[in-house]
Amino acid sequence: MNNYMAVVEYDGTGYSGFQIQPDGINTIQEEIEKAIFKILQQKVRLRYAGRTDAGVHATHQVINFKSEKELNLYRFKWSINSLLPQDIAVKEINKVSCSFDARRDAKFREYSYFVVNGNYQSVFLKKYSILFVEKINVNLMKKAADMVVGVRDFKSFCNRDDDKSKNTLRNMISLTINKNKDSLIIFKMSANSFLYNMARIIVGTLLEIGCGKRDIESIKKAITLGDRNLTGKTAPAKGLFLTNVVY
Amino acid sequence: MNNYMAVVEYDGTGYSGFQIQPDGINTIQEEIEKAIFKILQQKVRLRYAGRTDAGVHATHQVINFKSEKELNLYRFKWSINSLLPQDIAVKEINKVSCSFDARRDAKFREYSYFVVNGNYQSVFLKKYSILFVEKINVNLMKKAADMVVGVRDFKSFCNRDDDKSKNTLRNMISLTINKNKDSLIIFKMSANSFLYNMARIIVGTLLEIGCGKRDIESIKKAITLGDRNLTGKTAPAKGLFLTNVVY
Repeated sequence: MNNYMAVVEYDGTGYSGFQIQPDGINTIQEEIEKAIFKILQQKVRLRYAGRTDAGVHATHQVINFKSEKELNLYRFKWSINSLLPQDIAVKEINKVSCSFDARRDAKFREYSYFVVNGNYQSVFLKKYSILFVEKINVNLMKKAADMVVGVRDFKSFCNRDDDKSKNTLRNMISLTINKNKDSLIIFKMSANSFLYNMARIIVGTLLEIGCGKRDIESIKKAITLGDRNLTGKTAPAKGLFLTNVVY
Repeated sequence: MNNYMAVVEYDGTGYSGFQIQPDGINTIQEEIEKAIFKILQQKVRLRYAGRTDAGVHATHQVINFKSEKELNLYRFKWSINSLLPQDIAVKEINKVSCSFDARRDAKFREYSYFVVNGNYQSVFLKKYSILFVEKINVNLMKKAADMVVGVRDFKSFCNRDDDKSKNTLRNMISLTINKNKDSLIIFKMSANSFLYNMARIIVGTLLEIGCGKRDIESIKKAITLGDRNLTGKTAPAKGLFLTNVVY
């Protein structure tokens, strides 16, 4: 048996998320599995590092699948990229050890979130960022961000009851915020894993702190009490990218 | 009478070019004029710096229009951007002297062309660049590029007989080629004005020289003889952007 690992990127705009759904709605996983089936004439079930939500993008999603077939990797990449829709592509593919599992073995995932802060959003960024008009204090957001770095209980940063009933401790390895000259604010966060909507609730909460709608101390309270009412709005999906997975 | 100058950007993918067409097909000019009509309740005819072809994009197109109405510029920008389709936007608007004309007064236009050189094109670049698989000698292209800088007869770099019968001398002020780490080759050219398809024929010709399909000396011959058969293919529209206009 061979185990193949691939790095995949996609524009999530038109999809109901990565994970295949029982009701046959449009997912990235389904598109990739369909394309692999056309090449291998064999059904595979993908393993993947991050279950990105509807509308979330990826520049670096990692998947793996097993097959008894020996693939010519160069040819496979060409074939699958000609079969996949225009907004999904395989960046690289490698043969890996049989024990490798894209989800279980991931040490941490990195997500990036893009916010245009001002009164103008370029047409080329509209699908990939949100426009935030209020003045933002980036330094205040940075201070708040530091408070969620480390091993923390992120229960109040989660939108799914299923997840909340389990272990909600996560290790946020880093959370950086940078503003570039074009008024683009980039949030970059790495954690061992993320709860449902966690990255987007963190961004939503930080933005509310940054524009003065929420007290910075509320972060501590949110972590201690684990109450979703103590955190901010879930920031829209379109600004979020899965940008790296480290093994 | 007031004269308003605006900087406009657009994703040209879905449009039949900037210039309005008699048969009512989808153009950027028509969309902007329709949006202005909704705000001013007055028909205006735009003047514009560059007549970009079907599928060509712009990050910096300059237009102007006249109206007796006094505009609140800040409000006008918000209004027009909420009325325009998602892929067209007004970046800035200013009141200018009545004599200003976006086309006639432009000293030079800058176009940029994006080529991904390799075997993989990111899903985020597919609409904005072409994929070129053959190995390219960038230094050879740079040498060839130098040969079209200056006041030259660009008759052989033009796809329209109408244009060819007129004065085909143009002043190419600069033509630079840069390759970045992601195998993205960026052509940037500035000229007083461009003949029909001139930027795309220049790129097509340089790419053929860069991959060894065309002799570098053929550029001189093409300029001297003015024969379209002596230049390369017209590079696809989607890689081309109007990126600046200088007055």
